[in-house]
Amino acid sequence: MLNFKFYNPTKMIFGKDTIKSIGDHVSSYGITKVLLLYGKGSIFKNGVYDTVTKSLKEHDIEYVEVTGVKANPVVSKVREAIKVMRENDTEAIIAIGGGSVIDSAKAASAGFYYTGDVWDFFERSEEVKRALPIFTVLTISATGSEMNSGGVITNEEQQKKWSFGSPLLYPLVSIVDPSIQSSLPSIQTAHGAIDALSHVFELYFGGTSHTDMMDELSEGIIRTIIKHTPVLLKEPDNYVSRCELAWCATLGLNGINGTGRAGDWSSHSIEHSVSVLNDIAHGSGLAIVMPAWMKYVQHKAVDKFARFGEKIFNITEGTKEEIGLQAIEKLRDFYKSLGAPITLKEAGVKREDIEFIAGNASILEPLGTLMPLYKEDIRKILEIAYE
Amino acid sequence: MLNFKFYNPTKMIFGKDTIKSIGDHVSSYGITKVLLLYGKGSIFKNGVYDTVTKSLKEHDIEYVEVTGVKANPVVSKVREAIKVMRENDTEAIIAIGGGSVIDSAKAASAGFYYTGDVWDFFERSEEVKRALPIFTVLTISATGSEMNSGGVITNEEQQKKWSFGSPLLYPLVSIVDPSIQSSLPSIQTAHGAIDALSHVFELYFGGTSHTDMMDELSEGIIRTIIKHTPVLLKEPDNYVSRCELAWCATLGLNGINGTGRAGDWSSHSIEHSVSVLNDIAHGSGLAIVMPAWMKYVQHKAVDKFARFGEKIFNITEGTKEEIGLQAIEKLRDFYKSLGAPITLKEAGVKREDIEFIAGNASILEPLGTLMPLYKEDIRKILEIAYE
Repeated sequence: MLNFKFYNPTKMIFGKDTIKSIGDHVSSYGITKVLLLYGKGSIFKNGVYDTVTKSLKEHDIEYVEVTGVKANPVVSKVREAIKVMRENDTEAIIAIGGGSVIDSAKAASAGFYYTGDVWDFFERSEEVKRALPIFTVLTISATGSEMNSGGVITNEEQQKKWSFGSPLLYPLVSIVDPSIQSSLPSIQTAHGAIDALSHVFELYFGGTSHTDMMDELSEGIIRTIIKHTPVLLKEPDNYVSRCELAWCATLGLNGINGTGRAGDWSSHSIEHSVSVLNDIAHGSGLAIVMPAWMKYVQHKAVDKFARFGEKIFNITEGTKEEIGLQAIEKLRDFYKSLGAPITLKEAGVKREDIEFIAGNASILEPLGTLMPLYKEDIRKILEIAYE
Repeated sequence: MLNFKFYNPTKMIFGKDTIKSIGDHVSSYGITKVLLLYGKGSIFKNGVYDTVTKSLKEHDIEYVEVTGVKANPVVSKVREAIKVMRENDTEAIIAIGGGSVIDSAKAASAGFYYTGDVWDFFERSEEVKRALPIFTVLTISATGSEMNSGGVITNEEQQKKWSFGSPLLYPLVSIVDPSIQSSLPSIQTAHGAIDALSHVFELYFGGTSHTDMMDELSEGIIRTIIKHTPVLLKEPDNYVSRCELAWCATLGLNGINGTGRAGDWSSHSIEHSVSVLNDIAHGSGLAIVMPAWMKYVQHKAVDKFARFGEKIFNITEGTKEEIGLQAIEKLRDFYKSLGAPITLKEAGVKREDIEFIAGNASILEPLGTLMPLYKEDIRKILEIAYE
């Protein structure tokens, strides 16, 4: 087990009818003026906007709004949010949405006090030294951003979809009411589940130190997501399954699951380069890229992939190598059953774009810890993923 | 799944050679004078005392000491610590030890600013409103107190072994270097493992809402402890197994495992009444009481105990009831194999004391959530536990 530091001060408020407490939480910190950051109109349809603003009004908390955060959130929107916050002297941000909105809120929070351009944090040329408090009201379970200190933003001009983070960016309070996710389109629930699974896979298959306890935790999360996601596609308002998926998604990337080991994260880097060009949903991109990566690197961790096959899909027949490869196929079948595309071609990516994607992803090469990946490896993985 | 709040701001510093960072952590909060609280002389033998004080000196942090915290820690020692801290204007406490020392530190921290007697917090007649910062250097993995906000202290005069807690009592920083535990006597390692398992059982078998994900987490912790504890009895300096047991013990009671469900906790209450009179180790008491409680309440959760038998001990033959009862026997066998007493008689408890113990435990009746227990139930459980 690797030495580790674990620190996660986010207050998680989880369960039915918890969103109406947002005003109470915000005002408990003496905050009187906030930015509301959100995406499109879904929070008007599911009632979340009304619940939040009613609660803020009851606590005499003023708010200004920035809307239109996209699914693959962009730095230009972050800059807009920073400008609005500065003009209005807001004291905190309330992110209402999924990972895109929360990641944008983190970037805006970090950028608020910084005199340079917020993209500097992504280039690692600056560290976050001060940040505005962040509150979140989660509307889709997927990224775990509601309970961690990182985020991913796209720089449209530079065609970079990069991550950043700082311990200053843990949300102070995150409210997760899984019941409001019952109005999500099925494919979004599926993408969320795939994203959450992918975080666990990155940590589970990472090439650093093994730990029994973290393997157990990862396998528990994987089995629970695989059990409950199909239920939600049939019964979108099944509250029990909503809770299971929601808490699994948070646990997948709130730091606990990474204790004592580092992840691989090359599939995420590759996916970011796929979606920077094609603007496909992150969950779709991962459903395509991750099994292809698994096939390419499986020979580097034959025992681990066999364990995966046994513990997750109960495959016991065959050599270890066969069990591992069968498990990867089972995973693809599962993704297909959720309605996700499982090839780049299905997702509308053109074969001639593979070269660009491989180049874009290899800016930070080598990727990964299980097997260091260079441009040529990435190109081969994309070929496997193509059809 | 029950609605829940999860909040745990403790910074966990885990791994080999981490103790020497204590001075750095303490001084990062601007603290210049602390109380060192510890038990007997073991921290001189394993070098922890020297490592801590050297690091404090390097950071110009003054310290005063209170020693002699017992295995079942008492409120008189807490009062002594409060007095010494007030006389010396200490700004924080460093607890060096296991749960007994850390729990005593929490009580002293809460009592420092309080003008009344610290026992008021245990009687629930007062709430903790302010507390001194707590740092911990863990020397035995068992209670999880290094990463939670509660504790258990004995009031010797009143013969009460009671719990208390407050969100103000999370340690700021806890340092866990599992390698220093290699010098522990085997029986202490065993007791620690049994204590950690017992916390998981309380949460796993609790009578409130079920959650798949938390069952998975609990089962993962249980399997990992059952795998690695016997290794440590043979190879006390097996660092991998020390790490697995240590992190499992913390995860068992740092709050995550309790999300979405409440525990039962009646076995803990009964054990406290056993050890208030007999001063036996908490782990021993739990090894005796908990399986007896399981036998008594198994009919209330036949499916859960059968699941326990299947997932933990791979028992598949028999009716659900039979599988559950077999599993309880397997657990007793496991405790026996660790060298723990599994009957009250073996632990030196007299049969005639059962009446006193049942009376002492039933002050707060009914106990538990799986099956509410009254004095007569407690007496019957103690009879099962007797021999």
